[in-house]
Amino acid sequence: MTIRFVTSNEGKVREAREYLGDDEVEQVNYDYLEVQSDDLADIAAHGAREAYEQLDSDEPVLVDDAGLFVEAFDGFPGPYSAYVEGTVGVERVYELTDLQDDDRAYFRTVLAYYDGEETQTFEGAVPGRIVAPRGDGGFGYDPIFEHDGKTMAEMTTEEKNAISHRGRALAKFADWLATEPAERKGPR
Amino acid sequence: MTIRFVTSNEGKVREAREYLGDDEVEQVNYDYLEVQSDDLADIAAHGAREAYEQLDSDEPVLVDDAGLFVEAFDGFPGPYSAYVEGTVGVERVYELTDLQDDDRAYFRTVLAYYDGEETQTFEGAVPGRIVAPRGDGGFGYDPIFEHDGKTMAEMTTEEKNAISHRGRALAKFADWLATEPAERKGPR
Repeated sequence: MTIRFVTSNEGKVREAREYLGDDEVEQVNYDYLEVQSDDLADIAAHGAREAYEQLDSDEPVLVDDAGLFVEAFDGFPGPYSAYVEGTVGVERVYELTDLQDDDRAYFRTVLAYYDGEETQTFEGAVPGRIVAPRGDGGFGYDPIFEHDGKTMAEMTTEEKNAISHRGRALAKFADWLATEPAERKGPR
Repeated sequence: MTIRFVTSNEGKVREAREYLGDDEVEQVNYDYLEVQSDDLADIAAHGAREAYEQLDSDEPVLVDDAGLFVEAFDGFPGPYSAYVEGTVGVERVYELTDLQDDDRAYFRTVLAYYDGEETQTFEGAVPGRIVAPRGDGGFGYDPIFEHDGKTMAEMTTEEKNAISHRGRALAKFADWLATEPAERKGPR
């Protein structure tokens, strides 16, 4: 069985192959519609079903969605993290959080798998806190997200990979795939 | 011809009938998917096409989408105004805008019409500025949106109706409907 990972991002495909095996993951470029929802699992599951149908695929498909969830704002920017990065900007998300008492946040990825019959979703999260921007690496919200004393923009690639929220979701997905279908319990 | 206005909001239907005629507008409850986009017209047009197909309608459908667009933030919260109201909250949108040099904003509605062949969209906007919350009326962002010296929450229903962004979009739509199909130019 080959899993068709619907993404234009080759880095994500490499990461998926580390967990699922080189021959098990095929990259597919397809621009599915993202629906509006405060739940990443909803968005990814819709995307997986649309991609499966539009690609006329016989192989199962995998879709991911990710975001930064700030506790003080009930998860905002969450599923709209890319939009907020492009409009409000990362520094202003810090400024706004700095006015609150609670600086806790999560980076979160949800993977959705659809094989034409069942949809399964798998979540990975990394906890941290919102801080004034530090570091030159990374992208997006990395400079304002601190985990274990360093912002994501201050970490080496190895350090970032070690705490990858996508990796955590992929590990759960790989576990689930490795179990016999009859014994599978989901979602995780 | 009856137009099926896809909304659960009876106030919107009443307003549409003022522009289009009592017998021309039928209210239909249908929960279409909202797609992610920074363009209200995209979201409404997708909704109109989905509603038309799912309702198995012979009559054209009308869908609206609206939001508050703050200039300093490239339009944020825009299409995600309801989500941002429910997470960040209206007061914090004011606080964040107050840190910027530019307090200009727009309330904007886009109507999308689909008759099975062509999609047309119509926009209405009201300019204003973001201020500290004032007034007890209205809902949503009304207390922080000032137009002509009053916040929307300080206006009477009559004053609000006189500057309705939805009304402005409906007026354009009614003009377009009144022209001969052969002479129609869109979108407006």
